[in-house]
Amino acid sequence: MITVHTIAALKEQLAIFRSTTQSIGFVPTMGYLHEGHESLLKKARNENDVVVLSIFVNPSQFGPNEDLDRYPRDLERDLAIAKKSQVDIVFAPSIEEMYPTKMKIHFLAEEQSKVLCGASRPGHFEGVLMVVTKLFHLVSPTRAYFGMKDAQQLAIIETLVRDYNFPLEIIRGETIREEDGLAKSSRNVFLCEKEREEAPALFQALVLAKEHFQKHRSVIDAIQKATEHVTKNTNAKIDYLQLLEYPSLAEVTEDSQEMIVAGAIYFENARLIDNQIFNVKGE
Amino acid sequence: MITVHTIAALKEQLAIFRSTTQSIGFVPTMGYLHEGHESLLKKARNENDVVVLSIFVNPSQFGPNEDLDRYPRDLERDLAIAKKSQVDIVFAPSIEEMYPTKMKIHFLAEEQSKVLCGASRPGHFEGVLMVVTKLFHLVSPTRAYFGMKDAQQLAIIETLVRDYNFPLEIIRGETIREEDGLAKSSRNVFLCEKEREEAPALFQALVLAKEHFQKHRSVIDAIQKATEHVTKNTNAKIDYLQLLEYPSLAEVTEDSQEMIVAGAIYFENARLIDNQIFNVKGE
Repeated sequence: MITVHTIAALKEQLAIFRSTTQSIGFVPTMGYLHEGHESLLKKARNENDVVVLSIFVNPSQFGPNEDLDRYPRDLERDLAIAKKSQVDIVFAPSIEEMYPTKMKIHFLAEEQSKVLCGASRPGHFEGVLMVVTKLFHLVSPTRAYFGMKDAQQLAIIETLVRDYNFPLEIIRGETIREEDGLAKSSRNVFLCEKEREEAPALFQALVLAKEHFQKHRSVIDAIQKATEHVTKNTNAKIDYLQLLEYPSLAEVTEDSQEMIVAGAIYFENARLIDNQIFNVKGE
Repeated sequence: MITVHTIAALKEQLAIFRSTTQSIGFVPTMGYLHEGHESLLKKARNENDVVVLSIFVNPSQFGPNEDLDRYPRDLERDLAIAKKSQVDIVFAPSIEEMYPTKMKIHFLAEEQSKVLCGASRPGHFEGVLMVVTKLFHLVSPTRAYFGMKDAQQLAIIETLVRDYNFPLEIIRGETIREEDGLAKSSRNVFLCEKEREEAPALFQALVLAKEHFQKHRSVIDAIQKATEHVTKNTNAKIDYLQLLEYPSLAEVTEDSQEMIVAGAIYFENARLIDNQIFNVKGE
């Protein structure tokens, strides 16, 4: 495994691999790797000749009052996990390497970025599109892997790739959970003991909403169920609980087939998100 | 030479060439080719193993009251010129092929798109960024060629490529002119005889402004000179005549090194643009 910190070194390493290999699997992350990332790396390892992992806490996707400064970082630990996952190249650039000058051209994502996390984090997905586009151009992967825990991010990146004809395939990775259902997240480390005990209520609430909707087809009632469950079982503040069409993230209509029920809740030092994606007919 | 109209056919052809060649030169155009395009094709031919020409009148870069419908088109004539220029692949897609669904993600270009043509054509450069990004991803060129007549477009595309780490090089092509100085343009065909006689006054005015600025260092006086020249020698309506820093397109300061004096004028059925890019010290 080779770890590089500059674009020049990344290109040099990729050129060596490119001369002899067919496919590059790419897993872009903000580091502080957990089993969710590991499962993406495993998928990438199985499906490609070369696996590239990027570790970059991207400032352009954090709002001014968000947790950029205290986002957890531990490169040494990440490199050990990467090695264990048989990664070939780790790209861990500095902010200056990724943004040497002020960006003069930005993305504007429409409907898909106005709901769910986009409503509470204005500019977040535009920042994601910015860094993902840069990384795609730097790595030129055959396949890029994104976890379904960040379902809105996944939907928007799928739109980006389709709208702009990126020559690569987006692969969805299942959400990986703790035994009690809590979705694995780098931010779980910010939960105190009591919050950690309450946290699975988000997952439970989303499952309740999904099942209620599949049975009764009422968005309002399903969300009501989920809200009650979170309120009763946690001291967290609800950011949103919403049931939408997926991946368009439009309002549910009679014609909607694929759905998402997604939620975000604030604990003292961590904002957690989770979702259930399901077909109206059953799973 | 192979002409393809679909993305699938383009990819198939490129794959054949890619297996045996090193470099791809790409000349994106809106067709109705003139000597300006030919000089770009010649440059591309000299510098690359494969030359790809795209012909696509891109609707997303035309405003609602602009000349999209009557933009000149002549594929047969273009293909003859392409053949003469030893193009390998012509990509001439339909609108449906390039935009099968409504685009949900857009570009937003800042300062650079607010001046000159950007001021009179809101959304124009965002549309250019959209189609150029799509074409870059479809062709994956080693080098892409753009004429300096569209100096603002060139500056913005250079920013795009740098900001977003596109793995390609932008090559600038000199503006090609008629014997009397008029810049070659697909839109020159819309000039009536009298307008065609007056049209070189734009070029002359820009040269006057450049020379005046190099001597006296006054932006206001230089633009005054150009304005007088156009007003005296044509019946055209001036859209803008401006002297800015290049390629930032910011206001000129004492530190500015590279400059552009650019102009756009309206004749009855054609809006013509032209520019002079020069160094403050001399040429």
